[in-house]
Amino acid sequence: MSSNYGNKIKFQYFGQSHSDSIGVVIDGLPAGKKIDLDKINEFMSRRAPGFDQLSTPRKETDSFNIVSGLFNDKTCGAPLCAIIGNTNIRSSDYTDIKSKPRPSHADYTAFVKYNGFNDINGGGHFSGRLTAPLCFAGAVALQFLEDCGISVLSHIYSIGKIFDDKFNYTEFEKDIIIKLKNNRFPVINDDISGKMQNLILEAKQEGDSVGGIIECAVLGLKAGVGDPIYRGIESCLAEVIFGIPAVKGLEFGNGFEAAFINGSENNDAFYYDKNKQVKTKTNNSGGINGGISNGMPIIFRTAVKPTPSIGKEQNTINLTTQEDDTLIINGRHDPCIVARACSVIEAAAATVILDLII
Amino acid sequence: MSSNYGNKIKFQYFGQSHSDSIGVVIDGLPAGKKIDLDKINEFMSRRAPGFDQLSTPRKETDSFNIVSGLFNDKTCGAPLCAIIGNTNIRSSDYTDIKSKPRPSHADYTAFVKYNGFNDINGGGHFSGRLTAPLCFAGAVALQFLEDCGISVLSHIYSIGKIFDDKFNYTEFEKDIIIKLKNNRFPVINDDISGKMQNLILEAKQEGDSVGGIIECAVLGLKAGVGDPIYRGIESCLAEVIFGIPAVKGLEFGNGFEAAFINGSENNDAFYYDKNKQVKTKTNNSGGINGGISNGMPIIFRTAVKPTPSIGKEQNTINLTTQEDDTLIINGRHDPCIVARACSVIEAAAATVILDLII
Amino acid sequence: MSSNYGNKIKFQYFGQSHSDSIGVVIDGLPAGKKIDLDKINEFMSRRAPGFDQLSTPRKETDSFNIVSGLFNDKTCGAPLCAIIGNTNIRSSDYTDIKSKPRPSHADYTAFVKYNGFNDINGGGHFSGRLTAPLCFAGAVALQFLEDCGISVLSHIYSIGKIFDDKFNYTEFEKDIIIKLKNNRFPVINDDISGKMQNLILEAKQEGDSVGGIIECAVLGLKAGVGDPIYRGIESCLAEVIFGIPAVKGLEFGNGFEAAFINGSENNDAFYYDKNKQVKTKTNNSGGINGGISNGMPIIFRTAVKPTPSIGKEQNTINLTTQEDDTLIINGRHDPCIVARACSVIEAAAATVILDLII
Amino acid sequence: MSSNYGNKIKFQYFGQSHSDSIGVVIDGLPAGKKIDLDKINEFMSRRAPGFDQLSTPRKETDSFNIVSGLFNDKTCGAPLCAIIGNTNIRSSDYTDIKSKPRPSHADYTAFVKYNGFNDINGGGHFSGRLTAPLCFAGAVALQFLEDCGISVLSHIYSIGKIFDDKFNYTEFEKDIIIKLKNNRFPVINDDISGKMQNLILEAKQEGDSVGGIIECAVLGLKAGVGDPIYRGIESCLAEVIFGIPAVKGLEFGNGFEAAFINGSENNDAFYYDKNKQVKTKTNNSGGINGGISNGMPIIFRTAVKPTPSIGKEQNTINLTTQEDDTLIINGRHDPCIVARACSVIEAAAATVILDLII
Repeated sequence: MSSNYGNKIKFQYFGQSHSDSIGVVIDGLPAGKKIDLDKINEFMSRRAPGFDQLSTPRKETDSFNIVSGLFNDKTCGAPLCAIIGNTNIRSSDYTDIKSKPRPSHADYTAFVKYNGFNDINGGGHFSGRLTAPLCFAGAVALQFLEDCGISVLSHIYSIGKIFDDKFNYTEFEKDIIIKLKNNRFPVINDDISGKMQNLILEAKQEGDSVGGIIECAVLGLKAGVGDPIYRGIESCLAEVIFGIPAVKGLEFGNGFEAAFINGSENNDAFYYDKNKQVKTKTNNSGGINGGISNGMPIIFRTAVKPTPSIGKEQNTINLTTQEDDTLIINGRHDPCIVARACSVIEAAAATVILDLII
Repeated sequence: MSSNYGNKIKFQYFGQSHSDSIGVVIDGLPAGKKIDLDKINEFMSRRAPGFDQLSTPRKETDSFNIVSGLFNDKTCGAPLCAIIGNTNIRSSDYTDIKSKPRPSHADYTAFVKYNGFNDINGGGHFSGRLTAPLCFAGAVALQFLEDCGISVLSHIYSIGKIFDDKFNYTEFEKDIIIKLKNNRFPVINDDISGKMQNLILEAKQEGDSVGGIIECAVLGLKAGVGDPIYRGIESCLAEVIFGIPAVKGLEFGNGFEAAFINGSENNDAFYYDKNKQVKTKTNNSGGINGGISNGMPIIFRTAVKPTPSIGKEQNTINLTTQEDDTLIINGRHDPCIVARACSVIEAAAATVILDLII
Repeated sequence: MSSNYGNKIKFQYFGQSHSDSIGVVIDGLPAGKKIDLDKINEFMSRRAPGFDQLSTPRKETDSFNIVSGLFNDKTCGAPLCAIIGNTNIRSSDYTDIKSKPRPSHADYTAFVKYNGFNDINGGGHFSGRLTAPLCFAGAVALQFLEDCGISVLSHIYSIGKIFDDKFNYTEFEKDIIIKLKNNRFPVINDDISGKMQNLILEAKQEGDSVGGIIECAVLGLKAGVGDPIYRGIESCLAEVIFGIPAVKGLEFGNGFEAAFINGSENNDAFYYDKNKQVKTKTNNSGGINGGISNGMPIIFRTAVKPTPSIGKEQNTINLTTQEDDTLIINGRHDPCIVARACSVIEAAAATVILDLII
Repeated sequence: MSSNYGNKIKFQYFGQSHSDSIGVVIDGLPAGKKIDLDKINEFMSRRAPGFDQLSTPRKETDSFNIVSGLFNDKTCGAPLCAIIGNTNIRSSDYTDIKSKPRPSHADYTAFVKYNGFNDINGGGHFSGRLTAPLCFAGAVALQFLEDCGISVLSHIYSIGKIFDDKFNYTEFEKDIIIKLKNNRFPVINDDISGKMQNLILEAKQEGDSVGGIIECAVLGLKAGVGDPIYRGIESCLAEVIFGIPAVKGLEFGNGFEAAFINGSENNDAFYYDKNKQVKTKTNNSGGINGGISNGMPIIFRTAVKPTPSIGKEQNTINLTTQEDDTLIINGRHDPCIVARACSVIEAAAATVILDLII
């Protein structure tokens, strides 16, 4: 058990960075939904690398082929399988890694777990490349969610120590939604965007990388979704989001900040709005009480570490000689994956929420 | 699906704050292990309330009765079921809550999800009381882990804005381990303990509450444990830890800090120690790469919000009159649950790790 | 993983024949259903032993205690846990078995699987006694099914080679339903009942046992229930029914008979009845096509082997001496469990169907 | 949840009879196993149609493409995905079926379940064509099982009322094993083979079909495999085998026969063989006690109904006119699928057993 999740809908991913292809099988989608392929392409293009200076020069169009699950362009109840070819492969980049595991990558742990039989090219199954089928699945899920009035939105909350504004947790203005939607470098505060991009380019020039924090919101989710305790919304989202490479932290609502303030400050007072809808004055809970949605926006932030693939020489071990050694990673990599990861986080959230509301 | 988790071992919890009893069924434990009941009692007593001024005056001895799964005091392969009676119940405390949901509690979301049929007394199934059987399960799991040389340790990293030292992520001194083990108010820096307790008592006097952060370590876990992607150690721990009431954030290794620094600073360089064991110089990864343990200590921090049960008057709604209203929570509650939650976090970690290594 | 099943509703059983108690946790029941305890008792009494000459003299009232999951006598969304005490225990009956496994019992396989640590008294967790909590769960499930117009019915189709009539697969008369409902020895053809009972008493006198076949029907299930392929109705029922001790065969509709006839005879022609409901002229499919209900009664037959506990001397091995040996089983046992098993089969079906339609 | 199963290894199938392609993802295979593609082809060719007069003229070579999960021809720990193209498609054959569901097929139930959006061509996802990826998965599983000394063997026990010999349940001669292995029409008694084939050809000539029974054995499985109760070997096999189209019955050991005899006849006496191995004199239990293997061959029989696709005119309904109607199925179909199903049953058994022993 590893590359699959879901209860009522099962998402099963497959592929390695340099295998013939990668993809996903989605089992349990409701039948009768027309799938808009253009929308999927549009969504996936935000993740696709190689289109600007901020990401890896490995260009992959991420064009997918749906080989089953549709009938007359609509879901038909059968598992939907999409396949994405790996077209731009340079395995020669990875000859060194076989014996010298890259620090803070999964090379060493995969070596131990799979007795040295793991696919080392490009990180194999642990590669960020596997987030392409996740984005496909998310793009499909979003189309179902749209029918239920649910949308998913994210922005780059920080790159290094440069911070964007936080979302307004209690109300989302249409302008913000439109601005962030399908944006390749989504930030709320326009003034900050250039500074963030400069920081990334500086890191790139130094052969280094930077991390950041992504803030994500699920809008339109009615109260009462989520099972309590170990199948609450937080648990279900966390399971999948911690499966995304480079994620090291996750917090809901005001998250770690809650630990610093008193209950009287932190509690979200209920009130009826003018339409007699139940609302909370603040939304420190991130829209979730006891694992179940309370009708307010679901809010969470994800810490994305600086990608461990850097150009600088690093200390590591040599598994062949069993001596300490040094490593310079060639290959092609991102100085910062945070912008691309926004769509990945949205996709993960979309798949999880769809599974919860079906 | 809700109050259960686990793959090879299934943990199924049951009970409400004021039901006849609460408990857990553990299905899949290896046979032949002598269970030390005293050790379980000792572990559970750290969570049990009512023993000092820092916690709720509701005193529960949390004495358990193992009704199945043992034969001659040893596990026998059959599901182990333990039952804990609810002895000290004052349901009259909760008459108000039926119509007036407590802010940042699960009263309202449970009302919506269960169409008003949820057990409101003491929060019902959402109560922190349900962490008692979790601690039982954890105490059992710890005895199995001990045989594998694995231990779980935690301390209060912060109460409000008063911070303890962090763990030394790469090396755990015996003194620290002994000091924290089974400690009812575990901190590394002794100077800080009194300040933290004062802050809690201040909050108590004001009818308020404070939150905090718990840092937890799993020691002795060999490299190669955990499945990749959605069944990695982070995913598995997160699923259960976000099921613990009041948890709003979780980070591994340096967690959100990783987002602020460069890859060259964040990467954990591998080296061979003098015994030719693979180690990392830093442990920003918290002992996990690609979801799989790398042999270093597993490190994670959990944000625990201030308990939402406070004595101050709060704004809320009245579900009967459908008007805004105010609420004063009587009942008995903790001004701070962080100290008690340490054992709960350790228990959650122990059950998850045991399921992973079996 | 072993003593649990279910997708949307999880059924977790626990206990051994001679443990303090046995029971079940049902997690995921819809909230707000008033549970009729008398009906549960009535249903469970059909399984309870010791009430006539046809079953074991070990008398167990099987009185249960619901310790969680109800609030004001209604399901409240929290896991429902029921506990049944083991009151009438004579472990001395089983001293011999520790070294001499009973033929066709699970003594030897449990010994191997659990390295000799399994609870041998009364068969431990493998005992037919564990069908008591299954009957409890079934009785609860039946109350939910009743609200959906679904009922479950069974009769003894055969004892040894004495056969009852088969159900009329396409139409169930009210008389038959009333006659079989909650009957301790349910047969359609009254003339056959006495002969069957005589055969059982003969076997009893000889210290032997007899098996039989149970035919079961699920009535009122609408078309469209069940997921295709490995989560079809047949698969889901089979998983649980083969978990009932002594079951060695299962067939749906005309089952093995289908293998003997041509497609043109076996196919169930569709037609519209006078109310424009879709029906089939025959029901060789047992109400299931492609794993999904077609609106006709669900029909299946279960082969129950003669209970392996017999009074006659048997050849077996001695695990202590590692030599061949002989064994006379003392203890108290049933000459035939088929009649009691009817309620068990109905219970299993009810829990599975409820999980499918929720 | 539907087209997937497995606990430690997950098998996820996808595809429809006439979709672009069909396939399987196998998640959780141990790393480091060299996969012999020729052996897979050899195994799959037994199922592939169109090679003799006994099966459908729809010829599919069933050539597969492994697109992930291998590295240097060995399993690498990543999910293994194989894709099989659908090359020989004649959807025009199925225009009638859209409104006129074929009796005893899944056309009507799928119509109801999927609100008419199901893929009707060739039965869509319910088609026997989906057993091709199951055979692929089985062929892979068999290679892992071989390393553990486990093999799976089957023969046609009956076609209509013509019966082969049963297996000798306690001892399998090498001759028999070699004779049946990879045989396209496997029978023990050579005299019977021609008679069976004649019966099939007769049915074919009449535009009819015949069913049969397959007997299958798993050899070399050590004692102690299988979890008790609902995860016993019977339950696990049954879940998957009842997911195979046309299967309507399943029995283990002597199965339904057990219901006709006394316990003293049915019980399998234990003894030590000359190598001090524990054996049973008879094997009426089919190698399983309490869900756990006892070291004897696992034996089970599966009833395969006559394929419901027949050339004769049949009564059915017309979903468009909502009137009764008649149907003549054109298309291409098998007069008997029993011979082809042997490999399918073996494949199902292999995948289940591998999941149990890993």
